[in-house]
Amino acid sequence: MRIIVDGFGGDNAPLAVLQGCALARKEYGVDITVTGDEETLKKTAAGNGIDLTGIDLVHAPSVIPVEAEPKTIMTEYADSSMAKGFQLLAAGDGDAFVCAGSTGAMVVGASLIVKRIKGIKRASLAPILPAEKGCYILMDAGANLECRPEMLVQFGIMGSIYMEKVMGVKSPRVALVNVGAEETKGTELQLEAYRLLSGNKAVNFTGNIEPRYIPRGDADVVVADGFTGNVVLKLTEGMGKLLSHGLKDIFMSGISGKLAALLCMKRIRAFKQSMDYTEYGGAPLLGTARPVIKAHGSSDPKAFKNAIRQARDFAERDVIGQIASAAARLKESGRED
Amino acid sequence: MRIIVDGFGGDNAPLAVLQGCALARKEYGVDITVTGDEETLKKTAAGNGIDLTGIDLVHAPSVIPVEAEPKTIMTEYADSSMAKGFQLLAAGDGDAFVCAGSTGAMVVGASLIVKRIKGIKRASLAPILPAEKGCYILMDAGANLECRPEMLVQFGIMGSIYMEKVMGVKSPRVALVNVGAEETKGTELQLEAYRLLSGNKAVNFTGNIEPRYIPRGDADVVVADGFTGNVVLKLTEGMGKLLSHGLKDIFMSGISGKLAALLCMKRIRAFKQSMDYTEYGGAPLLGTARPVIKAHGSSDPKAFKNAIRQARDFAERDVIGQIASAAARLKESGRED
Repeated sequence: MRIIVDGFGGDNAPLAVLQGCALARKEYGVDITVTGDEETLKKTAAGNGIDLTGIDLVHAPSVIPVEAEPKTIMTEYADSSMAKGFQLLAAGDGDAFVCAGSTGAMVVGASLIVKRIKGIKRASLAPILPAEKGCYILMDAGANLECRPEMLVQFGIMGSIYMEKVMGVKSPRVALVNVGAEETKGTELQLEAYRLLSGNKAVNFTGNIEPRYIPRGDADVVVADGFTGNVVLKLTEGMGKLLSHGLKDIFMSGISGKLAALLCMKRIRAFKQSMDYTEYGGAPLLGTARPVIKAHGSSDPKAFKNAIRQARDFAERDVIGQIASAAARLKESGRED
Repeated sequence: MRIIVDGFGGDNAPLAVLQGCALARKEYGVDITVTGDEETLKKTAAGNGIDLTGIDLVHAPSVIPVEAEPKTIMTEYADSSMAKGFQLLAAGDGDAFVCAGSTGAMVVGASLIVKRIKGIKRASLAPILPAEKGCYILMDAGANLECRPEMLVQFGIMGSIYMEKVMGVKSPRVALVNVGAEETKGTELQLEAYRLLSGNKAVNFTGNIEPRYIPRGDADVVVADGFTGNVVLKLTEGMGKLLSHGLKDIFMSGISGKLAALLCMKRIRAFKQSMDYTEYGGAPLLGTARPVIKAHGSSDPKAFKNAIRQARDFAERDVIGQIASAAARLKESGRED
C-alpha cells in the first residue's frame, strides 16, 4: 500500500505534511510518496529531525496557489506538486492520493487526470462531519453547484458505500436535504430526486431531512446539490465557531470561570473533540476512478496522519470497485440517462 | 394602535396567546383584538384570571390545522381564526396582525387577503436571528423556494428598511448567501443578483457572504432564495440545539459539573439568552400591504408579548410606506421587469 501525498498543499506545508507522513508511516506502516520541490522537502525534513525512511520524494517544481483558476492545474501548473500527485495516481504509482490544496483544482485534477468511474456523472466532494450521535457524510459539498436528480441518486449510492466500507456503518441511512419531511416538498430537483431515491434498492433511503435534524445525526448520508451542501458545510463550521467562542467566554473570564473550567475540563474537552471534524481525517472525492482524499487546508500533522489512514482504508476496502458495480447496475436498470 | 392576534395559532394556544396579549396590553398600552372561538377564549381567560380589559374578541368558529394545505385558508378554513385575522387587517380594523399558526397558510392569507405592496413580486418570510454580534434578518426563509434575481434585490431592499426602521440598525449591511466571496461565484441566480444588488443605491450591498460568517454577524440583511434561506434557518436552529445539549452535558453531570454551573451561571444564561431568537419577537412577513408578524409555533406568553411589540413598531414606523416608495423607484429606474 502506497499513499501519495501533496507536500505543498495546505496552510502548514511542507512541514506539517512531512510530520504527518512520518507519523503515519510509523503508525500504519504504509509506504508514502511525497510530491514537491525535492530540495525544500529534504531541507525541511533534515532541519526538523523528520525521518524519511519509507517516504519517497518525487520532484515537482511548482505549487498551484489556492486562488488560481482550477483549470490551470492542466496547463500553467501541470508541473505542480498537486498535478504530479494526480499523475502518479493515474499511472498506478500509488494507491491513493492525499492533498490539502485548493478544492477546485483537486476536483478538476481528479476528473481530468485520474478520470471518473464509468457511468458516474460527477466527482463529488464528500466531507465527514460530526453529529450529536456519530458522524455523517455530506455530498455534494460544493464541487457541483447545480445538479440533476440522477446525480443526487449517485451521490446517495456513493456516500452509502463509503460510509459502510470505510466508516463501518451498517446499512447507512440516506436522506435528502429538503425544506420539509413530506415527499411533496421542495423544488423540482428534490421532488424528482425523492422519487428516484425511493425507487432505488441500492440505498436505504429514509426520505427528506430538514436541516435542523442534520446535526442530531438523523442520517448517515446527507444528499444535496453542491450549492445547498456547501451552505450546510460552511454554516455548520460557522455555528461550531460561535459555540467554541461561547464556551471560551463562559470559562475564560474571571477566577470563577477558570475554576469552573478546571472542574469540568474533561467534559469540555470531550464535547470539543466530538465536534472536531479533523478527527475523521479529510473529505473523500467520490466518483473518481482512484481514491482521493481532500485534507482540510488548516491540517496539522495529526490531521495529515488521519487523512493518510483514511486514504489507506478507502483504497483497501474496495470502495471504487463497489461504486463501479453500482454504476453499472444503475445503467442496466435504465435509471440512467 | 390596535394589534390583531390569532387566538388559536401555535402549540400553546389559546392560553399562552391570551396571557401574552394581557402582558402586552399592560406593558405597551396597545389595543388588541383576538380572533377565535369566543366562548373558549372567554372561558380560558376566566379560568386563568386573565384580565380582558382593552382586549376585544372577534368570533371565528374554526382553526386551520398546521398540516392543512395552505390554500384552504381561502376555502375550507375561510372562517378560521387566522383567516378572520387577515380579513380584519385587510378591512382596516387593526394596524397589524400577529399569528403563530402555519407559515404556509400565513403566506397565502397575507398575499391573497391582505395583498402585496404594489410592485413587490412576493411576500417573504423574514425571521430575525441572533448572531455573535447583534442579530440579522434572513430573507427569504422559505416562503419562495425558487426565486428570480429581481426578487432577491427586493428582499435586500425590504430587509434593509425593516432593520433600519424597526431594529434601529443604521445603513444595514446587505449580503448575498453564496459559496464564495468573489462576484464570480455561484449559480446564474447569484451572479445576476450580485450584479443587480451592487448597482442598486437603495441598499448598502457588501457583497457575497459565505455561510460560515453568518453566525458571526457579518451582515444585517442576509439575502437568499427561499430554499437556501430555509436551510440556513433550520440548520442554525439545529446547531443551536446541539450546543445547548452540549452545555447540558458539561454542567449537568456529576457534582463537579453542577458546582461549575453555579460558578458561571450568569455567563451561561447570558450566552443562552444571546442565542434565543424568541427575544426578538417573531418573523415579519415583508412585502404585504399591511404589517404581519409570524410568531414562532412554540411561543410562550413572553414570546407573544414580544411579537406584539414588534408588530406595533412595524406598524408605527412606516415600514410599509418606505417599501412602497422603494418599489415605485425600482419600477421607475427600469430595474423592474
